Amino acid sequence: MHELELPRVDLQTGLHWLDLIGIVAFALSGALLAVRKRFDLFGVLVLGCVTAVGGGAIRDTLTGQTPPLFLRDESYLWAALLGSVLAFAFGERLARFERTISVFDTVGLGLFAASGALGAINFGLGPLGVIFTGALSGVGGGIIRDLIANEVPEVMYRRDQLYATAAAAGAFTVLLVHPYVTPFQAQASGAAVVILARWLSRRGWVRLPVRRLPGG
Amino acid sequence: MHELELPRVDLQTGLHWLDLIGIVAFALSGALLAVRKRFDLFGVLVLGCVTAVGGGAIRDTLTGQTPPLFLRDESYLWAALLGSVLAFAFGERLARFERTISVFDTVGLGLFAASGALGAINFGLGPLGVIFTGALSGVGGGIIRDLIANEVPEVMYRRDQLYATAAAAGAFTVLLVHPYVTPFQAQASGAAVVILARWLSRRGWVRLPVRRLPGG
Amino acid sequence: MHELELPRVDLQTGLHWLDLIGIVAFALSGALLAVRKRFDLFGVLVLGCVTAVGGGAIRDTLTGQTPPLFLRDESYLWAALLGSVLAFAFGERLARFERTISVFDTVGLGLFAASGALGAINFGLGPLGVIFTGALSGVGGGIIRDLIANEVPEVMYRRDQLYATAAAAGAFTVLLVHPYVTPFQAQASGAAVVILARWLSRRGWVRLPVRRLPGG
Repeated sequence: MHELELPRVDLQTGLHWLDLIGIVAFALSGALLAVRKRFDLFGVLVLGCVTAVGGGAIRDTLTGQTPPLFLRDESYLWAALLGSVLAFAFGERLARFERTISVFDTVGLGLFAASGALGAINFGLGPLGVIFTGALSGVGGGIIRDLIANEVPEVMYRRDQLYATAAAAGAFTVLLVHPYVTPFQAQASGAAVVILARWLSRRGWVRLPVRRLPGG
Repeated sequence: MHELELPRVDLQTGLHWLDLIGIVAFALSGALLAVRKRFDLFGVLVLGCVTAVGGGAIRDTLTGQTPPLFLRDESYLWAALLGSVLAFAFGERLARFERTISVFDTVGLGLFAASGALGAINFGLGPLGVIFTGALSGVGGGIIRDLIANEVPEVMYRRDQLYATAAAAGAFTVLLVHPYVTPFQAQASGAAVVILARWLSRRGWVRLPVRRLPGG
Repeated sequence: MHELELPRVDLQTGLHWLDLIGIVAFALSGALLAVRKRFDLFGVLVLGCVTAVGGGAIRDTLTGQTPPLFLRDESYLWAALLGSVLAFAFGERLARFERTISVFDTVGLGLFAASGALGAINFGLGPLGVIFTGALSGVGGGIIRDLIANEVPEVMYRRDQLYATAAAAGAFTVLLVHPYVTPFQAQASGAAVVILARWLSRRGWVRLPVRRLPGG
C-alpha cells in the first residue's frame, strides 16, 4: 500500500472544474426546491448556496480543515450563486428538465462522496471512518436542504432509488482502489460507481429491503 | 486599505454589552416560541440558549475559533439564561410586547451579522466568504430555533420582511467601510444598516421578488 | 481543588465498554425509529449511526477535539453499525422491549452527559460551559435523530419525563465531584444521577412546570 504522495490541496485540483459543476448542480436542486416553496429571492439564494456548500463543509469539519474549502476558495461560492440565480431566473424551464438536474446532482453526489473519502484517507482515518465521511460529504448538502425546507430528507425515504447507499459505495470504491492509482483516478472511479449505482437503481435493477413494525 | 490592527478579542470588547443585549433578545425569541409550543421549563431554557448562542457558534466554527466564544466567556451563557428565564416567567406579558422583542431581535441580528463579517475579514476570507459568514452568523440562531421547534425557518418564507437579506446587507456594509474606520465603527455601521433595512421592509418600502413554478 | 492528572484519552478508557453499550443503545433508538418510518436498510443504518455518534461529535467539536473520537476509534462506528443492524433484523421483537431499549438509552444519555462534562472541565471551560456541553453531548444524538426523521425533538415536549434536565443534572454532578474523585468515579457519578433522575421522573415523582400563553 503506497502512500498518497500529493499534498491535500492538490487532491482537489484535478477535478476542480467537475467539483464546480457538482456545486452548480447542488445549488440548482436547493434553489429549485426554494422556488417551489415560494421562498423569496434571497431565500432561494440561501437554500441554493447552503445545499451546494453543505457537503463540503461537513467533509472539511470532520477532517479538521478549518476554514472549510468553500470559504478559502471563493470560486465555490460564486458557482453556488450562479446555480441559484439560474434556478430563480429559469426555474419554470428547468422544472421540465428535472432529469438533467438529477444527472448533475448525481455527478455532485459522486464527486463529493469520493473527495470526502480521499480527504478521510489522507487524514489517516480507518475504513469505516472513510466510508462514513465520504457518504456524509455526498449526502450532507441534500440533508441540510431538506431540513431547512422542513421535509423528511429525501435520502431516507426514496427507497426506489439508491442515494446514500450509492454514496457509500463510491467511498468504498475509493478506499479499495486508492493504494493502486492516483488520487485523480481514485476520485473518478468513486464518482463513476456512484453514477452507475444510481442509474441501476433508477432502472429498478437494485433495491434495498424495508422492514415494517407490526402496526407501524 | 489599512490593516485591522486590533487583535480579535478587542474587536468584541467595544460592543460587548450590545452583544449581550442581542443575546438576551435572541434568547427571548427562542424561549417565547418554546413557551408557545408548551415545552417544559428546561425545554424553554434549552431553546432560548441555543437560539442565543447558535449564531455565534456558527461564526466561530467557520472562522476557526475553537472553542466558540460563548464557551470561553461565561457571560454569554448567563445572558442567554437570563433571557430564557424572563420569557418563562413573564411570557404572557411579553407576548403583548412582540414589537419590543422584535426590536431587540433586529439589534441582535445586526450585531451578529456585523461581528461575523468582521471575524471573517480578520480571518482573511474573500468578499463572498465575508458576506456568507456574516449573514449566517446573523440568522443562524433563528434557523436552529425553528429547526428544533419543527417550523419552516422564518427567515425563508416571510418575504414581507427582509431578514437574511438585511443581514447580508449589514455584512456587505462592514466589508465596504472596514478599511476606513475602526472595527467598532464598522460593526456599528453594519448593525445600523441591518436595522434600517428591517425597518424599511416592515414599512413595505422594500420587497423581494418571488418566483412560482407552474402548478407549484 | 486538585487538577485532573490523567491525559484526555485516558478519561475515556475506564468506561470505554460502557460507552460502547451506550452507543449501541442510541443506535437502536435511531434505527428503530427509522424502521417505523419505513426507511430502507441504508436509511436505517444511517439514522442509527448518526444518532449513536451525534452526541460525541457535538462534544468533540465544542471542546476542540478534531477529528471527533468516533472517527479516530473505529470501534465506535462498529458498535453503531451493530445496534443498527440488530434493530433492522429484530425490529419487531425489540419493539416489545421498548423499556429495555429505554434503559440502554438512559445509560447512554448519562455516560455521554458525564463524558461531555469531563471533556469540558478538562478543556478549561467555566461552570455554565461544562453543564451546557455535558447536556448537549447527552441529548445531541437524539435531537439530530428527531430532526432527520422530521419530528419535534422528543427532548423538548415529553415533559412527563425528564431528559435534557437529567443530562444537565448529571453534568452538574460531575462538576461538583470532579475535584475530589477520579475521572472514572466522576463519570460514573454523573451517569448514576442521570439514571436516577430519569427513573424518578418516570415514576411521576419529579415534574417540570409548563407555561402557556393566552390563546397559545
